[in-house]
Amino acid sequence: MEICYTVAEVRKQVKEWKKEGLTIGFVPTMGYLHEGHKSLMEEARKENDKVVVSIFVNPMQFGPTEDLESYPRDLKKDAALCKEVGVDLIFHPEPEEMYPEGFCSYVDMNGLTTELCGKSRPIHFRGVQTVVLKLFHIVCPDNAYFGQKDAQQLAVIKRMVKDLSVDITIHGCPIIREQDGLAKSSRNTYLNEEERQAALILSKSLALGKQMIAEGEKDAATIKKAIADKIETEPLAKIDYVDVVDFATITPIDQIAGETLVAIAVYIGKTRLIDNFIVEA
Amino acid sequence: MEICYTVAEVRKQVKEWKKEGLTIGFVPTMGYLHEGHKSLMEEARKENDKVVVSIFVNPMQFGPTEDLESYPRDLKKDAALCKEVGVDLIFHPEPEEMYPEGFCSYVDMNGLTTELCGKSRPIHFRGVQTVVLKLFHIVCPDNAYFGQKDAQQLAVIKRMVKDLSVDITIHGCPIIREQDGLAKSSRNTYLNEEERQAALILSKSLALGKQMIAEGEKDAATIKKAIADKIETEPLAKIDYVDVVDFATITPIDQIAGETLVAIAVYIGKTRLIDNFIVEA
Repeated sequence: MEICYTVAEVRKQVKEWKKEGLTIGFVPTMGYLHEGHKSLMEEARKENDKVVVSIFVNPMQFGPTEDLESYPRDLKKDAALCKEVGVDLIFHPEPEEMYPEGFCSYVDMNGLTTELCGKSRPIHFRGVQTVVLKLFHIVCPDNAYFGQKDAQQLAVIKRMVKDLSVDITIHGCPIIREQDGLAKSSRNTYLNEEERQAALILSKSLALGKQMIAEGEKDAATIKKAIADKIETEPLAKIDYVDVVDFATITPIDQIAGETLVAIAVYIGKTRLIDNFIVEA
Repeated sequence: MEICYTVAEVRKQVKEWKKEGLTIGFVPTMGYLHEGHKSLMEEARKENDKVVVSIFVNPMQFGPTEDLESYPRDLKKDAALCKEVGVDLIFHPEPEEMYPEGFCSYVDMNGLTTELCGKSRPIHFRGVQTVVLKLFHIVCPDNAYFGQKDAQQLAVIKRMVKDLSVDITIHGCPIIREQDGLAKSSRNTYLNEEERQAALILSKSLALGKQMIAEGEKDAATIKKAIADKIETEPLAKIDYVDVVDFATITPIDQIAGETLVAIAVYIGKTRLIDNFIVEA
Protein backbone atom coordinates (compact mmCIF):
# COMPACT_ATOMS: atom_id res chain seq x y z
CA MET A 1 0.00 0.00 0.00
CA GLU A 2 1.28 3.39 -1.07
CA ILE A 3 0.69 6.72 0.74
CA CYS A 4 0.74 9.73 -1.61
CA TYR A 5 0.86 13.34 -0.49
CA THR A 6 0.71 15.12 -3.84
CA VAL A 7 -1.72 15.26 -6.75
CA ALA A 8 1.13 14.43 -9.15
CA GLU A 9 1.98 11.17 -7.36
CA VAL A 10 -1.63 9.98 -7.42
CA ARG A 11 -2.06 10.91 -11.09
CA LYS A 12 1.07 8.95 -12.03
CA GLN A 13 -0.14 5.78 -10.30
CA VAL A 14 -3.70 6.14 -11.58
CA LYS A 15 -2.49 6.56 -15.18
CA GLU A 16 -0.48 3.35 -14.92
CA TRP A 17 -3.51 1.47 -13.65
CA LYS A 18 -5.74 2.92 -16.37
CA LYS A 19 -3.22 1.89 -19.01
CA GLU A 20 -3.54 -1.69 -17.75
CA GLY A 21 -7.34 -1.40 -17.98
CA LEU A 22 -7.84 -1.76 -14.21
CA THR A 23 -10.94 -0.41 -12.45
CA ILE A 24 -10.63 1.96 -9.51
CA GLY A 25 -12.89 2.22 -6.46
CA PHE A 26 -12.62 5.39 -4.38
CA VAL A 27 -13.60 6.18 -0.80
CA PRO A 28 -13.17 9.87 0.10
CA THR A 29 -12.84 10.38 3.88
CA MET A 30 -11.72 12.89 6.49
CA GLY A 31 -9.85 10.11 8.29
CA TYR A 32 -10.18 8.88 11.87
CA LEU A 33 -11.63 5.83 10.19
CA HIS A 34 -14.21 3.61 11.87
CA GLU A 35 -16.36 0.61 10.96
CA GLY A 36 -18.53 2.84 8.76
CA HIS A 37 -15.58 3.78 6.55
CA LYS A 38 -14.38 0.18 6.70
CA SER A 39 -17.66 -1.02 5.21
CA LEU A 40 -17.22 1.42 2.30
CA MET A 41 -13.63 0.28 1.75
CA GLU A 42 -14.69 -3.37 1.81
CA GLU A 43 -17.42 -2.69 -0.73
CA ALA A 44 -14.88 -0.89 -2.94
CA ARG A 45 -12.44 -3.79 -2.48
CA LYS A 46 -15.04 -6.32 -3.67
CA GLU A 47 -16.06 -4.39 -6.78
CA ASN A 48 -12.81 -2.93 -8.17
CA ASP A 49 -9.29 -3.93 -9.17
CA LYS A 50 -7.72 -1.08 -7.20
CA VAL A 51 -8.94 0.85 -4.16
CA VAL A 52 -7.99 4.44 -3.32
CA VAL A 53 -8.88 6.12 -0.01
CA SER A 54 -8.40 9.84 0.50
CA ILE A 55 -7.82 11.16 4.01
CA PHE A 56 -8.24 14.92 4.03
CA VAL A 57 -9.86 17.12 6.67
CA ASN A 58 -11.24 19.60 4.17
CA PRO A 59 -11.15 23.18 5.54
CA MET A 60 -13.59 24.38 2.86
CA GLN A 61 -16.50 22.41 4.32
CA PHE A 62 -16.11 23.72 7.88
CA GLY A 63 -17.81 26.94 9.01
CA PRO A 64 -15.76 29.53 10.91
CA THR A 65 -17.11 28.39 14.32
CA GLU A 66 -16.97 24.67 13.57
CA ASP A 67 -14.55 21.95 14.67
CA LEU A 68 -11.89 22.10 11.93
CA GLU A 69 -8.98 22.38 14.39
CA SER A 70 -10.24 19.81 16.87
CA TYR A 71 -11.46 17.30 14.29
CA PRO A 72 -9.75 14.03 15.32
CA ARG A 73 -6.78 12.79 13.27
CA ASP A 74 -4.77 9.54 13.45
CA LEU A 75 -3.01 8.71 10.19
CA LYS A 76 -1.08 5.76 11.64
CA LYS A 77 -4.21 3.97 12.82
CA ASP A 78 -6.04 4.90 9.60
CA ALA A 79 -3.23 3.49 7.46
CA ALA A 80 -3.28 0.23 9.43
CA LEU A 81 -7.02 -0.17 8.84
CA CYS A 82 -6.65 0.61 5.13
CA LYS A 83 -3.88 -1.97 4.83
CA GLU A 84 -5.99 -4.56 6.62
CA VAL A 85 -8.86 -4.06 4.15
CA GLY A 86 -6.49 -4.24 1.16
CA VAL A 87 -6.49 -0.58 0.07
CA ASP A 88 -3.91 0.08 -2.66
CA LEU A 89 -3.32 3.81 -2.24
CA ILE A 90 -4.00 6.46 0.41
CA PHE A 91 -4.07 10.08 -0.77
CA HIS A 92 -3.29 12.31 2.19
CA PRO A 93 -2.66 15.87 0.97
CA GLU A 94 -1.96 18.99 3.00
CA PRO A 95 -4.50 21.82 2.59
CA GLU A 96 -1.87 23.78 0.58
CA GLU A 97 -1.67 20.93 -1.94
CA MET A 98 -5.43 20.98 -2.47
CA TYR A 99 -5.92 24.76 -2.23
CA PRO A 100 -2.81 26.51 -3.56
CA GLU A 101 -2.45 30.28 -3.63
CA GLY A 102 -5.10 32.01 -5.70
CA PHE A 103 -7.57 29.12 -5.45
CA CYS A 104 -11.05 30.59 -5.94
CA SER A 105 -13.25 28.05 -7.78
CA TYR A 106 -16.19 26.20 -6.29
CA VAL A 107 -19.00 23.84 -7.16
CA ASP A 108 -22.46 24.39 -5.70
CA MET A 109 -26.12 23.85 -6.50
CA ASN A 110 -29.46 25.61 -6.24
CA GLY A 111 -31.54 23.29 -4.10
CA LEU A 112 -30.69 20.15 -2.09
CA THR A 113 -28.24 22.12 0.07
CA THR A 114 -30.57 24.59 1.79
CA GLU A 115 -32.60 22.16 3.96
CA LEU A 116 -31.46 19.91 6.82
CA CYS A 117 -27.73 20.37 7.53
CA GLY A 118 -27.62 23.22 5.01
CA LYS A 119 -29.61 25.40 7.41
CA SER A 120 -27.08 25.37 10.22
CA ARG A 121 -24.07 24.74 7.93
CA PRO A 122 -24.63 27.18 5.03
CA ILE A 123 -21.24 26.75 3.31
CA HIS A 124 -20.78 23.07 4.15
CA PHE A 125 -22.05 21.45 0.96
CA ARG A 126 -20.24 23.89 -1.31
CA GLY A 127 -17.03 22.73 0.35
CA VAL A 128 -18.02 19.08 0.04
CA GLN A 129 -18.96 19.32 -3.65
CA THR A 130 -15.80 21.22 -4.52
CA VAL A 131 -13.41 18.85 -2.76
CA VAL A 132 -15.19 15.72 -3.96
CA LEU A 133 -15.21 16.83 -7.61
CA LYS A 134 -11.55 17.82 -7.33
CA LEU A 135 -10.73 14.42 -5.80
CA PHE A 136 -12.69 12.72 -8.59
CA HIS A 137 -10.55 14.57 -11.14
CA ILE A 138 -7.38 13.44 -9.36
CA VAL A 139 -8.30 9.81 -8.66
CA CYS A 140 -10.42 9.15 -11.81
CA PRO A 141 -12.38 6.33 -10.19
CA ASP A 142 -14.97 4.11 -11.87
CA ASN A 143 -16.89 3.79 -8.59
CA ALA A 144 -17.08 5.99 -5.50
CA TYR A 145 -18.54 5.02 -2.13
CA PHE A 146 -20.39 7.23 0.35
CA GLY A 147 -22.13 6.36 3.60
CA GLN A 148 -25.85 6.86 3.93
CA LYS A 149 -25.09 8.29 7.38
CA ASP A 150 -24.50 11.58 5.56
CA ALA A 151 -27.67 11.16 3.53
CA GLN A 152 -27.90 14.75 2.33
CA GLN A 153 -24.25 14.63 1.21
CA LEU A 154 -25.02 11.42 -0.70
CA ALA A 155 -28.00 13.05 -2.44
CA VAL A 156 -25.92 16.15 -3.27
CA ILE A 157 -23.06 14.11 -4.73
CA LYS A 158 -25.46 11.99 -6.79
CA ARG A 159 -27.08 15.16 -8.15
CA MET A 160 -23.72 16.82 -8.90
CA VAL A 161 -22.42 13.77 -10.75
CA LYS A 162 -25.61 13.54 -12.81
CA ASP A 163 -25.76 17.27 -13.58
CA LEU A 164 -22.11 17.67 -14.52
CA SER A 165 -21.95 14.38 -16.50
CA VAL A 166 -19.24 12.92 -14.29
CA ASP A 167 -18.68 9.36 -15.51
CA ILE A 168 -18.46 7.76 -12.05
CA THR A 169 -20.99 5.44 -10.39
CA ILE A 170 -21.92 6.62 -6.89
CA HIS A 171 -22.68 3.92 -4.35
CA GLY A 172 -24.60 4.71 -1.16
CA CYS A 173 -23.79 2.27 1.63
CA PRO A 174 -25.85 1.50 4.77
CA ILE A 175 -25.27 3.19 8.13
CA ILE A 176 -23.04 1.14 10.44
CA ARG A 177 -24.04 1.27 14.13
CA GLU A 178 -22.56 0.47 17.49
CA GLN A 179 -24.15 -2.58 19.16
CA ASP A 180 -26.46 -0.28 21.15
CA GLY A 181 -27.66 1.53 18.02
CA LEU A 182 -25.53 4.72 17.91
CA ALA A 183 -24.51 5.49 14.32
CA LYS A 184 -20.73 5.27 13.94
CA SER A 185 -19.11 8.68 13.54
CA SER A 186 -15.65 10.14 14.01
CA ARG A 187 -17.32 12.82 16.12
CA ASN A 188 -18.56 10.23 18.68
CA THR A 189 -15.08 10.57 20.14
CA TYR A 190 -16.10 14.02 21.47
CA LEU A 191 -18.73 12.47 23.80
CA ASN A 192 -18.06 11.86 27.51
CA GLU A 193 -19.57 8.80 29.15
CA GLU A 194 -22.82 10.47 30.11
CA GLU A 195 -23.24 12.06 26.68
CA ARG A 196 -22.43 8.75 24.98
CA GLN A 197 -25.42 7.24 26.81
CA ALA A 198 -27.64 10.25 26.03
CA ALA A 199 -26.71 10.00 22.32
CA LEU A 200 -28.76 6.83 22.05
CA ILE A 201 -31.81 9.06 21.84
CA LEU A 202 -31.02 9.64 18.14
CA SER A 203 -31.37 6.03 17.02
CA LYS A 204 -34.19 5.39 19.50
CA SER A 205 -36.30 8.28 18.27
CA LEU A 206 -35.71 7.26 14.65
CA ALA A 207 -36.72 3.69 15.47
CA LEU A 208 -39.99 5.11 16.75
CA GLY A 209 -40.55 7.05 13.52
CA LYS A 210 -39.70 3.98 11.43
CA GLN A 211 -42.20 1.91 13.40
CA MET A 212 -44.95 4.50 12.88
CA ILE A 213 -44.38 4.43 9.13
CA ALA A 214 -44.34 0.61 9.12
CA GLU A 215 -47.70 0.72 10.89
CA GLY A 216 -49.13 2.94 8.16
CA GLU A 217 -48.56 6.53 9.32
CA LYS A 218 -48.15 8.79 6.28
CA ASP A 219 -48.35 12.28 7.76
CA ALA A 220 -44.91 13.88 7.98
CA ALA A 221 -45.88 16.39 10.69
CA THR A 222 -47.17 13.60 12.95
CA ILE A 223 -43.99 11.57 12.49
CA LYS A 224 -41.76 14.60 13.04
CA LYS A 225 -43.61 15.55 16.22
CA ALA A 226 -43.32 12.02 17.65
CA ILE A 227 -39.57 11.93 16.94
CA ALA A 228 -39.03 15.41 18.37
CA ASP A 229 -41.04 14.61 21.50
CA LYS A 230 -38.99 11.48 22.03
CA ILE A 231 -35.69 13.38 21.65
CA GLU A 232 -36.86 15.98 24.14
CA THR A 233 -37.22 13.32 26.84
CA GLU A 234 -33.40 13.37 26.95
CA PRO A 235 -32.18 16.35 29.02
CA LEU A 236 -28.72 16.49 27.36
CA ALA A 237 -30.22 16.61 23.85
CA LYS A 238 -31.00 19.76 21.89
CA ILE A 239 -32.67 19.42 18.49
CA ASP A 240 -31.07 21.12 15.46
CA TYR A 241 -33.65 19.64 13.08
CA VAL A 242 -36.09 16.78 12.63
CA ASP A 243 -37.17 16.58 8.99
CA VAL A 244 -38.98 14.47 6.46
CA VAL A 245 -37.89 15.13 2.87
CA ASP A 246 -37.87 13.61 -0.58
CA PHE A 247 -34.48 11.85 -0.75
CA ALA A 248 -33.63 12.79 -4.34
CA THR A 249 -34.46 16.49 -4.07
CA ILE A 250 -34.10 17.08 -0.28
CA THR A 251 -37.35 19.08 -0.29
CA PRO A 252 -39.81 18.82 2.63
CA ILE A 253 -42.87 16.67 2.01
CA ASP A 254 -46.21 16.55 3.83
CA GLN A 255 -47.04 12.92 3.14
CA ILE A 256 -44.68 9.96 2.98
CA ALA A 257 -44.34 8.99 -0.71
CA GLY A 258 -41.57 7.63 -2.92
CA GLU A 259 -38.03 7.44 -1.53
CA THR A 260 -38.33 9.39 1.71
CA LEU A 261 -35.53 10.53 4.01
CA VAL A 262 -36.27 10.99 7.70
CA ALA A 263 -33.27 12.84 9.09
CA ILE A 264 -32.30 14.40 12.41
CA ALA A 265 -29.47 16.49 13.79
CA VAL A 266 -29.17 16.74 17.55
CA TYR A 267 -26.67 18.42 19.85
CA ILE A 268 -25.58 16.17 22.72
CA GLY A 269 -23.77 18.67 24.89
CA LYS A 270 -21.59 20.55 22.43
CA THR A 271 -21.38 17.71 19.92
CA ARG A 272 -23.67 17.80 16.91
CA LEU A 273 -24.68 14.32 15.76
CA ILE A 274 -26.76 13.27 12.76
CA ASP A 275 -28.71 10.12 11.98
CA ASN A 276 -31.44 9.08 9.52
CA PHE A 277 -33.33 6.36 7.75
CA ILE A 278 -34.70 6.11 4.21
CA VAL A 279 -38.01 4.45 3.43
CA GLU A 280 -39.43 3.52 0.05
CA ALA A 281 -43.17 4.16 0.30
CA MET B 1 -17.04 12.79 -39.48
CA GLU B 2 -19.76 11.84 -37.04
CA ILE B 3 -22.43 14.19 -35.61
CA CYS B 4 -23.62 13.13 -32.12
CA TYR B 5 -26.65 14.55 -30.37
CA THR B 6 -26.45 12.71 -27.03
CA VAL B 7 -23.94 12.41 -24.22
CA ALA B 8 -24.11 8.61 -24.47
CA GLU B 9 -23.07 8.59 -28.15
CA VAL B 10 -20.06 10.82 -27.48
CA ARG B 11 -18.98 8.78 -24.46
CA LYS B 12 -19.13 5.55 -26.48
CA GLN B 13 -16.89 6.94 -29.24
CA VAL B 14 -14.49 8.61 -26.79
CA LYS B 15 -14.09 5.36 -24.83
CA GLU B 16 -13.17 3.50 -27.98
CA TRP B 17 -10.55 6.11 -28.84
CA LYS B 18 -9.16 6.05 -25.30
CA LYS B 19 -8.89 2.27 -25.42
CA GLU B 20 -6.72 2.65 -28.52
CA GLY B 21 -4.55 5.17 -26.68
CA LEU B 22 -5.50 8.05 -29.00
CA THR B 23 -5.27 11.69 -27.89
CA ILE B 24 -8.27 14.00 -28.15
CA GLY B 25 -8.31 17.73 -28.91
CA PHE B 26 -11.48 19.63 -28.09
CA VAL B 27 -12.89 22.94 -29.34
CA PRO B 28 -16.06 24.01 -27.51
CA THR B 29 -18.12 26.50 -29.56
CA MET B 30 -21.57 28.02 -29.87
CA GLY B 31 -21.48 27.38 -33.62
CA TYR B 32 -21.84 29.83 -36.52
CA LEU B 33 -18.19 29.07 -37.01
CA HIS B 34 -15.78 31.57 -38.51
CA GLU B 35 -12.06 31.84 -39.19
CA GLY B 36 -11.42 32.27 -35.47
CA HIS B 37 -12.97 28.90 -34.65
CA LYS B 38 -11.24 27.43 -37.70
CA SER B 39 -7.85 28.43 -36.33
CA LEU B 40 -8.65 26.63 -33.06
CA MET B 41 -9.77 23.51 -34.93
CA GLU B 42 -6.65 23.56 -37.07
CA GLU B 43 -4.47 23.85 -33.98
CA ALA B 44 -6.35 20.92 -32.41
CA ARG B 45 -5.98 18.95 -35.67
CA LYS B 46 -2.22 19.44 -35.63
CA GLU B 47 -1.68 18.39 -32.03
CA ASN B 48 -4.09 15.46 -31.49
CA ASP B 49 -5.11 12.11 -32.98
CA LYS B 50 -8.81 12.96 -32.81
CA VAL B 51 -10.63 16.30 -32.83
CA VAL B 52 -14.03 16.94 -31.24
CA VAL B 53 -15.98 20.18 -31.73
CA SER B 54 -19.07 20.96 -29.67
CA ILE B 55 -21.72 23.24 -31.11
CA PHE B 56 -24.09 24.32 -28.37
CA VAL B 57 -25.69 27.72 -27.81
CA ASN B 58 -25.61 27.45 -24.01
CA PRO B 59 -28.70 29.06 -22.43
CA MET B 60 -27.01 29.15 -19.01
CA GLN B 61 -24.48 31.79 -20.09
CA PHE B 62 -27.04 34.24 -21.50
CA GLY B 63 -28.72 36.83 -19.29
CA PRO B 64 -32.51 37.26 -19.47
CA THR B 65 -32.25 40.30 -21.78
CA GLU B 66 -29.44 38.94 -23.95
CA ASP B 67 -29.46 37.48 -27.46
CA LEU B 68 -30.06 33.76 -26.76
CA GLU B 69 -32.95 33.49 -29.20
CA SER B 70 -31.43 35.56 -31.97
CA TYR B 71 -27.90 34.12 -31.67
CA PRO B 72 -27.06 32.99 -35.22
CA ARG B 73 -27.15 29.26 -36.01
CA ASP B 74 -26.18 27.32 -39.16
CA LEU B 75 -25.35 23.67 -38.47
CA LYS B 76 -25.04 22.73 -42.13
CA LYS B 77 -22.40 25.36 -42.84
CA ASP B 78 -20.66 24.60 -39.53
CA ALA B 79 -20.51 20.88 -40.32
CA ALA B 80 -19.01 21.60 -43.75
CA LEU B 81 -16.25 23.72 -42.18
CA CYS B 82 -15.54 21.06 -39.54
CA LYS B 83 -15.27 18.41 -42.23
CA GLU B 84 -12.93 20.59 -44.27
CA VAL B 85 -10.58 20.97 -41.29
CA GLY B 86 -10.69 17.24 -40.54
CA VAL B 87 -12.78 17.22 -37.37
CA ASP B 88 -13.71 13.67 -36.29
CA LEU B 89 -16.82 14.32 -34.20
CA ILE B 90 -19.31 17.15 -33.70
CA PHE B 91 -21.31 17.13 -30.48
CA HIS B 92 -24.51 19.09 -31.04
CA PRO B 93 -26.88 18.52 -28.09
CA GLU B 94 -30.28 20.06 -27.46
CA PRO B 95 -30.55 22.12 -24.24
CA GLU B 96 -32.68 19.31 -22.71
CA GLU B 97 -29.83 16.85 -23.23
CA MET B 98 -27.41 19.11 -21.37
CA TYR B 99 -29.82 20.39 -18.70
CA PRO B 100 -32.38 17.68 -17.97
CA GLU B 101 -35.20 18.17 -15.46
CA GLY B 102 -33.98 18.90 -11.96
CA PHE B 103 -30.59 20.20 -13.11
CA CYS B 104 -29.33 22.58 -10.42
CA SER B 105 -25.52 22.33 -10.16
CA TYR B 106 -23.07 25.01 -11.17
CA VAL B 107 -19.40 25.90 -11.15
CA ASP B 108 -18.29 29.41 -10.28
CA MET B 109 -15.42 31.31 -8.71
CA ASN B 110 -14.73 34.16 -6.33
CA GLY B 111 -12.74 36.61 -8.39
CA LEU B 112 -11.86 36.76 -12.11
CA THR B 113 -15.57 36.94 -13.04
CA THR B 114 -16.56 40.27 -11.46
CA GLU B 115 -14.54 42.68 -13.63
CA LEU B 116 -14.79 43.42 -17.36
CA CYS B 117 -17.62 41.39 -18.97
CA GLY B 118 -18.67 40.15 -15.52
CA LYS B 119 -19.93 43.64 -14.69
CA SER B 120 -22.56 43.81 -17.42
CA ARG B 121 -23.01 40.02 -17.67
CA PRO B 122 -23.22 38.91 -14.01
CA ILE B 123 -24.24 35.26 -14.58
CA HIS B 124 -22.31 34.78 -17.82
CA PHE B 125 -19.15 33.14 -16.50
CA ARG B 126 -21.02 30.80 -14.15
CA GLY B 127 -22.80 29.47 -17.24
CA VAL B 128 -19.55 29.22 -19.18
CA GLN B 129 -17.69 27.38 -16.41
CA THR B 130 -20.54 24.96 -15.84
CA VAL B 131 -21.02 24.03 -19.47
CA VAL B 132 -17.30 23.81 -20.20
CA LEU B 133 -16.61 21.53 -17.22
CA LYS B 134 -19.60 19.37 -18.17
CA LEU B 135 -18.34 19.17 -21.77
CA PHE B 136 -14.87 18.27 -20.47
CA HIS B 137 -16.43 15.39 -18.51
CA ILE B 138 -18.25 14.18 -21.63
CA VAL B 139 -15.45 14.58 -24.20
CA CYS B 140 -12.48 13.74 -21.90
CA PRO B 141 -9.98 15.65 -24.06
CA ASP B 142 -6.23 15.84 -23.52
CA ASN B 143 -6.16 19.37 -24.95
CA ALA B 144 -8.80 22.07 -25.22
CA TYR B 145 -8.58 25.22 -27.36
CA PHE B 146 -10.00 28.66 -26.60
CA GLY B 147 -9.66 31.94 -28.47
CA GLN B 148 -7.90 34.87 -26.85
CA LYS B 149 -10.74 37.00 -28.25
CA ASP B 150 -12.67 35.98 -25.11
CA ALA B 151 -9.67 36.72 -22.92
CA GLN B 152 -11.53 36.78 -19.63
CA GLN B 153 -13.17 33.45 -20.48
CA LEU B 154 -9.74 32.01 -21.24
CA ALA B 155 -8.39 33.21 -17.87
CA VAL B 156 -11.45 31.84 -16.05
CA ILE B 157 -11.18 28.41 -17.71
CA LYS B 158 -7.44 28.24 -16.96
CA ARG B 159 -8.13 29.07 -13.31
CA MET B 160 -11.00 26.55 -13.06
CA VAL B 161 -8.93 23.76 -14.56
CA LYS B 162 -6.04 24.49 -12.20
CA ASP B 163 -8.24 24.84 -9.11
CA LEU B 164 -10.32 21.73 -9.72
CA SER B 165 -7.35 19.60 -10.86
CA VAL B 166 -8.83 18.92 -14.27
CA ASP B 167 -6.21 16.98 -16.23
CA ILE B 168 -6.59 18.89 -19.49
CA THR B 169 -4.15 21.30 -21.10
CA ILE B 170 -5.79 24.62 -22.01
CA HIS B 171 -4.46 26.35 -25.12
CA GLY B 172 -5.14 30.04 -25.73
CA CYS B 173 -5.04 30.92 -29.44
CA PRO B 174 -4.51 34.35 -31.07
CA ILE B 175 -7.36 36.60 -32.16
CA ILE B 176 -8.22 36.22 -35.86
CA ARG B 177 -9.16 39.49 -37.58
CA GLU B 178 -10.83 40.62 -40.78
CA GLN B 179 -8.45 42.28 -43.24
CA ASP B 180 -9.45 45.71 -41.95
CA GLY B 181 -8.75 44.74 -38.33
CA LEU B 182 -12.18 43.84 -36.91
CA ALA B 183 -11.90 40.82 -34.62
CA LYS B 184 -13.86 37.86 -36.06
CA SER B 185 -17.03 37.17 -34.10
CA SER B 186 -20.30 35.37 -34.76
CA ARG B 187 -22.01 38.54 -33.52
CA ASN B 188 -20.48 40.64 -36.36
CA THR B 189 -23.39 39.32 -38.41
CA TYR B 190 -25.70 41.64 -36.43
CA LEU B 191 -23.97 44.74 -37.85
CA ASN B 192 -25.43 46.71 -40.78
CA GLU B 193 -23.06 48.29 -43.28
CA GLU B 194 -22.66 51.55 -41.41
CA GLU B 195 -22.14 49.77 -38.08
CA ARG B 196 -19.65 47.37 -39.66
CA GLN B 197 -17.54 50.42 -40.61
CA ALA B 198 -17.99 52.02 -37.18
CA ALA B 199 -16.89 48.77 -35.49
CA LEU B 200 -13.34 49.38 -36.69
CA ILE B 201 -13.00 51.80 -33.81
CA LEU B 202 -12.42 48.83 -31.48
CA SER B 203 -9.25 47.56 -33.15
CA LYS B 204 -8.10 51.11 -33.97
CA SER B 205 -8.37 52.31 -30.38
CA LEU B 206 -6.56 49.18 -29.12
CA ALA B 207 -3.81 49.74 -31.68
CA LEU B 208 -3.34 53.19 -30.17
CA GLY B 209 -3.08 51.72 -26.65
CA LYS B 210 -0.62 49.08 -27.83
CA GLN B 211 1.54 51.75 -29.45
CA MET B 212 1.57 53.85 -26.27
CA ILE B 213 2.79 50.83 -24.27
CA ALA B 214 5.41 50.05 -26.91
CA GLU B 215 6.62 53.64 -26.56
CA GLY B 216 7.03 53.18 -22.79
CA GLU B 217 3.74 54.32 -21.27
CA LYS B 218 3.12 52.38 -18.02
CA ASP B 219 0.24 54.26 -16.47
CA ALA B 220 -3.02 52.34 -16.86
CA ALA B 221 -5.26 55.40 -16.38
CA THR B 222 -3.45 57.29 -19.16
CA ILE B 223 -3.75 54.34 -21.55
CA LYS B 224 -7.42 53.78 -20.68
CA LYS B 225 -8.24 57.46 -21.22
CA ALA B 226 -6.53 57.53 -24.63
CA ILE B 227 -8.41 54.42 -25.77
CA ALA B 228 -11.74 55.72 -24.44
CA ASP B 229 -11.21 59.13 -26.09
CA LYS B 230 -10.47 57.43 -29.39
CA ILE B 231 -13.61 55.25 -29.15
CA GLU B 232 -15.71 58.31 -28.41
CA THR B 233 -14.72 59.88 -31.72
CA GLU B 234 -17.06 57.30 -33.29
CA PRO B 235 -20.70 58.50 -32.97
CA LEU B 236 -22.21 54.97 -33.23
CA ALA B 237 -20.00 53.62 -30.44
CA LYS B 238 -20.97 53.43 -26.77
CA ILE B 239 -18.36 52.19 -24.29
CA ASP B 240 -19.29 49.34 -21.94
CA TYR B 241 -15.78 49.18 -20.49
CA VAL B 242 -12.14 50.00 -21.20
CA ASP B 243 -9.92 48.20 -18.68
CA VAL B 244 -6.36 47.27 -17.90
CA VAL B 245 -6.04 44.17 -15.71
CA ASP B 246 -3.63 41.46 -14.67
CA PHE B 247 -4.36 38.64 -17.13
CA ALA B 248 -4.11 35.76 -14.65
CA THR B 249 -6.30 37.28 -11.94
CA ILE B 250 -8.41 39.75 -13.97
CA THR B 251 -7.86 42.42 -11.31
CA PRO B 252 -7.37 46.07 -12.27
CA ILE B 253 -3.80 47.37 -12.14
CA ASP B 254 -2.45 50.92 -11.98
CA GLN B 255 0.85 50.28 -13.73
CA ILE B 256 1.56 47.92 -16.64
CA ALA B 257 3.49 44.96 -15.19
CA GLY B 258 3.67 41.22 -15.90
CA GLU B 259 1.15 39.69 -18.27
CA THR B 260 -1.33 42.51 -18.78
CA LEU B 261 -4.70 42.38 -20.50
CA VAL B 262 -6.05 45.54 -22.13
CA ALA B 263 -9.69 44.78 -22.88
CA ILE B 264 -12.66 46.72 -24.21
CA ALA B 265 -16.36 46.13 -24.74
CA VAL B 266 -18.22 48.58 -26.97
CA TYR B 267 -21.79 48.76 -28.20
CA ILE B 268 -22.03 49.52 -31.90
CA GLY B 269 -25.72 50.27 -32.23
CA LYS B 270 -27.35 47.43 -30.31
CA THR B 271 -24.50 44.99 -30.84
CA ARG B 272 -21.99 44.52 -28.03
CA LEU B 273 -18.51 43.72 -29.34
CA ILE B 274 -15.33 42.88 -27.43
CA ASP B 275 -11.67 43.05 -28.33
CA ASN B 276 -8.34 43.05 -26.47
CA PHE B 277 -4.62 42.58 -26.51
CA ILE B 278 -2.22 41.04 -24.02
CA VAL B 279 1.24 42.49 -23.36
CA GLU B 280 4.08 40.96 -21.37
CA ALA B 281 5.75 43.86 -19.58
